[in-house]
Amino acid sequence: MTNPNIIRASRAVLHVTDLEQSFAFYDALGFIETARDENHLYLRGLEEHNHHSLCLKKGTEPVVEAISYKVEAENDLETLAKLFKKHNQDVRWLQKGEQTAMGRALRVTDPSGLTVEFYHEMETVDRLLQRYDLYKGAKVQRIDHFNCMVEDVEAAHNFYLRELGFRCSEYTATENDNIWAAWLHRKPSVHDVAFMNGLGPRLHHVGYWLKDPMSLIDACDVLASIGYGPNIERGPGRHGLSNAFFLYLRDPDGHRIELYNGDYLTSDPDFKPIRWDLDDPRRATFWGHEAPDSWFEEASHFLTLQGEQTVSLTEPKLEKKKPTFII
Amino acid sequence: MTNPNIIRASRAVLHVTDLEQSFAFYDALGFIETARDENHLYLRGLEEHNHHSLCLKKGTEPVVEAISYKVEAENDLETLAKLFKKHNQDVRWLQKGEQTAMGRALRVTDPSGLTVEFYHEMETVDRLLQRYDLYKGAKVQRIDHFNCMVEDVEAAHNFYLRELGFRCSEYTATENDNIWAAWLHRKPSVHDVAFMNGLGPRLHHVGYWLKDPMSLIDACDVLASIGYGPNIERGPGRHGLSNAFFLYLRDPDGHRIELYNGDYLTSDPDFKPIRWDLDDPRRATFWGHEAPDSWFEEASHFLTLQGEQTVSLTEPKLEKKKPTFII
Amino acid sequence: MTNPNIIRASRAVLHVTDLEQSFAFYDALGFIETARDENHLYLRGLEEHNHHSLCLKKGTEPVVEAISYKVEAENDLETLAKLFKKHNQDVRWLQKGEQTAMGRALRVTDPSGLTVEFYHEMETVDRLLQRYDLYKGAKVQRIDHFNCMVEDVEAAHNFYLRELGFRCSEYTATENDNIWAAWLHRKPSVHDVAFMNGLGPRLHHVGYWLKDPMSLIDACDVLASIGYGPNIERGPGRHGLSNAFFLYLRDPDGHRIELYNGDYLTSDPDFKPIRWDLDDPRRATFWGHEAPDSWFEEASHFLTLQGEQTVSLTEPKLEKKKPTFII
Amino acid sequence: MTNPNIIRASRAVLHVTDLEQSFAFYDALGFIETARDENHLYLRGLEEHNHHSLCLKKGTEPVVEAISYKVEAENDLETLAKLFKKHNQDVRWLQKGEQTAMGRALRVTDPSGLTVEFYHEMETVDRLLQRYDLYKGAKVQRIDHFNCMVEDVEAAHNFYLRELGFRCSEYTATENDNIWAAWLHRKPSVHDVAFMNGLGPRLHHVGYWLKDPMSLIDACDVLASIGYGPNIERGPGRHGLSNAFFLYLRDPDGHRIELYNGDYLTSDPDFKPIRWDLDDPRRATFWGHEAPDSWFEEASHFLTLQGEQTVSLTEPKLEKKKPTFII
Repeated sequence: MTNPNIIRASRAVLHVTDLEQSFAFYDALGFIETARDENHLYLRGLEEHNHHSLCLKKGTEPVVEAISYKVEAENDLETLAKLFKKHNQDVRWLQKGEQTAMGRALRVTDPSGLTVEFYHEMETVDRLLQRYDLYKGAKVQRIDHFNCMVEDVEAAHNFYLRELGFRCSEYTATENDNIWAAWLHRKPSVHDVAFMNGLGPRLHHVGYWLKDPMSLIDACDVLASIGYGPNIERGPGRHGLSNAFFLYLRDPDGHRIELYNGDYLTSDPDFKPIRWDLDDPRRATFWGHEAPDSWFEEASHFLTLQGEQTVSLTEPKLEKKKPTFII
Repeated sequence: MTNPNIIRASRAVLHVTDLEQSFAFYDALGFIETARDENHLYLRGLEEHNHHSLCLKKGTEPVVEAISYKVEAENDLETLAKLFKKHNQDVRWLQKGEQTAMGRALRVTDPSGLTVEFYHEMETVDRLLQRYDLYKGAKVQRIDHFNCMVEDVEAAHNFYLRELGFRCSEYTATENDNIWAAWLHRKPSVHDVAFMNGLGPRLHHVGYWLKDPMSLIDACDVLASIGYGPNIERGPGRHGLSNAFFLYLRDPDGHRIELYNGDYLTSDPDFKPIRWDLDDPRRATFWGHEAPDSWFEEASHFLTLQGEQTVSLTEPKLEKKKPTFII
Repeated sequence: MTNPNIIRASRAVLHVTDLEQSFAFYDALGFIETARDENHLYLRGLEEHNHHSLCLKKGTEPVVEAISYKVEAENDLETLAKLFKKHNQDVRWLQKGEQTAMGRALRVTDPSGLTVEFYHEMETVDRLLQRYDLYKGAKVQRIDHFNCMVEDVEAAHNFYLRELGFRCSEYTATENDNIWAAWLHRKPSVHDVAFMNGLGPRLHHVGYWLKDPMSLIDACDVLASIGYGPNIERGPGRHGLSNAFFLYLRDPDGHRIELYNGDYLTSDPDFKPIRWDLDDPRRATFWGHEAPDSWFEEASHFLTLQGEQTVSLTEPKLEKKKPTFII
Repeated sequence: MTNPNIIRASRAVLHVTDLEQSFAFYDALGFIETARDENHLYLRGLEEHNHHSLCLKKGTEPVVEAISYKVEAENDLETLAKLFKKHNQDVRWLQKGEQTAMGRALRVTDPSGLTVEFYHEMETVDRLLQRYDLYKGAKVQRIDHFNCMVEDVEAAHNFYLRELGFRCSEYTATENDNIWAAWLHRKPSVHDVAFMNGLGPRLHHVGYWLKDPMSLIDACDVLASIGYGPNIERGPGRHGLSNAFFLYLRDPDGHRIELYNGDYLTSDPDFKPIRWDLDDPRRATFWGHEAPDSWFEEASHFLTLQGEQTVSLTEPKLEKKKPTFII
């Protein structure tokens, strides 16, 4: 069986309760609106040549419909469908045209219960990288990663490495060598997805990459000047793990966005995953204030594959730890 | 009676318990050592052409010996001595040569009980502004201001404005129009000294000016990389009041240093003091985490004018307020 | 005779040929429009609480009507009028109301032939320092200085020091100790005005202060992205003299604007003027490309005091030197 | 025949005439010394976990011994040897242990005449990414790319795409659609190698990646402060092509180093190469001063595969163009 070639984390589909209210927030951050209709808002970063990396859908409650990965070729989708079926995971096809700007998409429930989407084709648009006159707020450049709370991190880690071809850049381990949290990548950055031990499956945040640390400080100033100061939940600070200079924001519906700068190239086959002890104080916070409780406890719920309801939650296998169990 | 011409806040004399331990900390921040002897360490910022702006003196406990202002001319010292005597405040002369690199100095107890020093003459040294090869840590440029907790802010404000020629740039007022906190300047920046309502007289912090916001982030990274992460007490964040981009550090003895960037020119005679309501949430924190309790409660005690003991403390006239009563 | 108390360089009145074209340029740089009428455009920086620091006036050719200084009090204007008359220099009064937002103004021809204006009163407006949502382009903060080419720098230097109370921060001297260029200040920065040996009297540039070096790089990116790349005449680079991180721009009429960051506090009475040799290569360019010929040769002409014609030019007393005779 | 899996541009072997003199320069830039012996200096960036990315070898003249790429696995080396032999290109093996810290290496003469090395194994060392106390100068993070002048860019482009699996991110074309310059990558950045029409084969520069734009400005300041100002050949400026914020330096032997920040992710299979017309003024210089002649004319010569002599040069097929034919 051929291995599927997943390229990278590439979009999130989030339900929000008020599109105008969401637009005001993401526009302030410097997202670009590619398109909108009555029920959708399609946003992208300044560097992105794809139609969107954030699809906001009008809904009755703020949930996650799917987190999506781009694959190398159309036939990777068949390979993935077989793979998930072999593991007795549900799959669902969305045909080209069912979703704006998208080709055919495969949606699956992954072993952690996350609703995950794969696709190859998305319409392309003008990249605005050199339209510096449009830069504002955080000057958001591109989607970088997803961070999910799951019941069994080690199982998720193993599945993504063995079946989906991900590599692990860094991980947190307990005294007994259980994997507590793991940063996994396909593109050669620290991660496309991270899994953390916690009540799950839930989406902790979507990470967006910024071009430099000052863009993150600029974001704080702009947000505060127009009344979004309370939406800054944590940061600025630096994680030991991943070396990220970070800021965590809550959008008007409570979805969490990370602004992110400072990680490194992980292209080399002999790059060994970095192990952090769960009790190392510099792991989660190389420097910076303690994270508030909300940051540990709150996260976005997923819709099931068919979209009728939210996925039910399970307590994690390993003990929860505050204040440092997650980044 | 001629008005004395005070130029600016220009040095602090702090007692520390271990000079080597202090040196390691301030050196990491990018301070330049001008000189040292068995009992003193003389430090300055990269821009400073004066011998030092921070005199650390070996002592048995971490107290403040004096906060100092430079005056335009020697005879301003006589003017000031008369003025303080007229107000029944104690004065004490230190002759040229009694203090390293210093001319004659006048020390007084000000109406708030602070031990304040005035001098005109200090030896000059090479300014290292363009020795970028020596820049490191926070790349500390120059001393900027003192921040003191006092029993009666309005009285302090009035004395400094009426008698010492200070101007007020910004202030915090209660519902009843009592001055709760005040930012006062001689050089045309936001302040040379700030007074806050609190258990006093105490020195809350000495503020040092940085050349840009990135130097403050760099300072966090460098401090954390060599084990001073826990010395970061508050920040980074921005105060509404003064527009300062700030970081508060505790030195190894607990003296508090503020790294500071972002204020503005206050030269104009028609610049009106900016009033902030005590309850305005953006006053203390335009954005940023809540300050920890230590930041509200802890501050350095002053030695009396003769240096035999610490000045006894008085509860403030107005109600204390947390988390926002001070910046 | 009392000394006049000049506060700082505070506005320039420039004639431009097309107000819309000028607005597009200055707006891209991040200037704020306070007001406009058919024949005027009034602009200010984000930090400025005065009505404007740049008055653009529709004219048939791009000339300088006046460079202006704010004084401490109304009666400083009488003092100045007497002083200039004593030196047989022409003076002209403009009454309150003759100029938008301005109180009474005194205009004079200074000994170098420059048309200089003094005033105390200008209407105030909201300072936009904390409206970060309005920051764009270079995020211009405030006017900083004028730079003028004059026939006899030493004479200008002496007049401004002896009669107008300026201090010299830095200067360039020839082998024979003639002053070739001088940086003079009233506010405690490197300069409010600089004089350079050259065909004069002409205005070489108006300098605007930026909050940090990145704002200057951002300005380059934004200008280039909307077609103003060719308006960047010189820089980015750093002058040895003044330590300025600089960028020189030509506005659509050819008036030169300097974006400027990196100087230092000059408040101390014992700060000694820094002497640079005319041949020191690091004086003009600490680092950076050579300045183009236009930068040495082109500058804006002044209108005479009555405004009927441009002031005629005189060759400088000292030899002109390229590429380093000016910053 | 299996495709070889080249990971990325990973080291350069340069001959220099004085190791101490070279060390002083690269140390000022912030390179880390991993090791040295009498005849070699091994340097790396702060992020690099490999032993070195720059091997400086004492020699009689400043030439290039090889530019090197890391491959996924040892057996990629055999695949590459066969491939180059099939194309009648010379190959040479260096056994493990012949070069410090290196496994077996394959060296070849590529179709442009460049001496290229491939290897899988290099000793690893501590990554210093979070040793911010060691950051200085440009805070060089990691090697990014090579830029070579070759006789026939289109031929080089085709060989690297068809035989070596590179992708093209951007290219410059003449009116007649000849490829004038091409940016090719294996890791998903703009390039691992660029080819430009010019007298070749020569190495124009080695590009090092910086973490942010301010590090480049800091490098200018530090270099100038210790006498390396004249080593800054071009910049700072921004290329339209690749969006790079750049600075070009000449090391003490004349080898050219580019400090580089600002490119983008090129991971997507549907990312289409960006075409630039040779005459587009924003291609080479989005903004910035004109490049000096030296930048167009001077480059480092290669040693032949056996190392006895330098490779002889050939005039390029297409017309040379100044000032914009290269970045």
